[in-house]
Amino acid sequence: MTIQAYLPFWTKLTAAQQQTLEGAMRQKTVDAGALLHSGGDDCTGLLLVTEGQLRVYTISEEGREITLYRLLEGDMCLFSAACMLNSIQFDVFVRAERPSAVVHIPPEVYKSLMQASLAVANYTNELMASRFSDVMWLLDQILNKKIDERLAALLLEEAGLADNSALHLTHDQLARHLGTAREVVTRMLKYFQSEGLVSLERGVILLRAPARLQEIAAHSLR
Amino acid sequence: MTIQAYLPFWTKLTAAQQQTLEGAMRQKTVDAGALLHSGGDDCTGLLLVTEGQLRVYTISEEGREITLYRLLEGDMCLFSAACMLNSIQFDVFVRAERPSAVVHIPPEVYKSLMQASLAVANYTNELMASRFSDVMWLLDQILNKKIDERLAALLLEEAGLADNSALHLTHDQLARHLGTAREVVTRMLKYFQSEGLVSLERGVILLRAPARLQEIAAHSLR
Repeated sequence: MTIQAYLPFWTKLTAAQQQTLEGAMRQKTVDAGALLHSGGDDCTGLLLVTEGQLRVYTISEEGREITLYRLLEGDMCLFSAACMLNSIQFDVFVRAERPSAVVHIPPEVYKSLMQASLAVANYTNELMASRFSDVMWLLDQILNKKIDERLAALLLEEAGLADNSALHLTHDQLARHLGTAREVVTRMLKYFQSEGLVSLERGVILLRAPARLQEIAAHSLR
Repeated sequence: MTIQAYLPFWTKLTAAQQQTLEGAMRQKTVDAGALLHSGGDDCTGLLLVTEGQLRVYTISEEGREITLYRLLEGDMCLFSAACMLNSIQFDVFVRAERPSAVVHIPPEVYKSLMQASLAVANYTNELMASRFSDVMWLLDQILNKKIDERLAALLLEEAGLADNSALHLTHDQLARHLGTAREVVTRMLKYFQSEGLVSLERGVILLRAPARLQEIAAHSLR
């Protein structure tokens, strides 16, 4: 798949705009764990994921993290270019969760395109609305779901992303996804183990009863 | 102030676009308490506040409310026209908190403008980014602030909005702003009263020590 195929506005750009964009885009590959964007101090630019998996999260003043959403192949990371829009008054962090390939678009190049091309401006609107929906879903989860339901949903999501029911994740990593304390996760995982839902082995969480985890996760979706 | 003065894109519209928009806009006044938009079933359209105060909130499946943000004079309500953008996958409710005047813009009229005018498309981007920032602030509050801090901040915010340190608000209303249970609010208000921060009288909460409430509210902003 060519890079252009990931950009729905591509065919609506003028030849000159296509040339500018093409000349400005840089592909890069990063290792799992690489920090691609770090809050408000830098205005990294947009990141188009062509391979792998990125995690977008925030960090509170106390250092507590929470995952906002994941970006997979074909997804565009907009908030790593927060300087493009005056009204973005929050910081996100972006880290690769797997070896990933991304295409970097400089913020000033994208901003000029957005101000010159209706297709780009409205693509940006849909992109932002989509991330807004992700965050509203998260807000609803936090307000209305218990931690056992959220942890069960997270374990299933992780198993889906990894396509593997043996998860190589620490309790601390899970806590940072959920925006809670490690102790809370450890306690709940031990309870899940006592119920036969998971097995906890050295560095691995094995999902033993996905269907029952699904029931727990879906509890408040009834 | 004319309606056009509230619309930063107005001067960038063509004469024909201005005429279409002007012909489609309807002013209306509503009483305090009026429900202006009710979730995903209707696509009300955009609401420009020219007077008064609107509250935008969500409701969980269990019926629990939480205030997302307030809209005051000059603010535009975008998410009451969620049908305009495919990627908006959440519902909000909009209610007048005071006697208010709003200008209604039909969703299909705004959508065509957005697809034809760069100024409107980019205004929409800034608008959405601004609301996104509000919701990210709320998320941070929920994750990182204790309920006493959030209640103290809310009481001060309400006193500021009403320009009055005697608040005519029920415990239930405060709970719905904060996304918590009424009992939690009542317990905390009684504690605030025992500390001399507020007086609780019939239907009125009197702020007696705003400076100390400010200290509590700011606690985790240290």
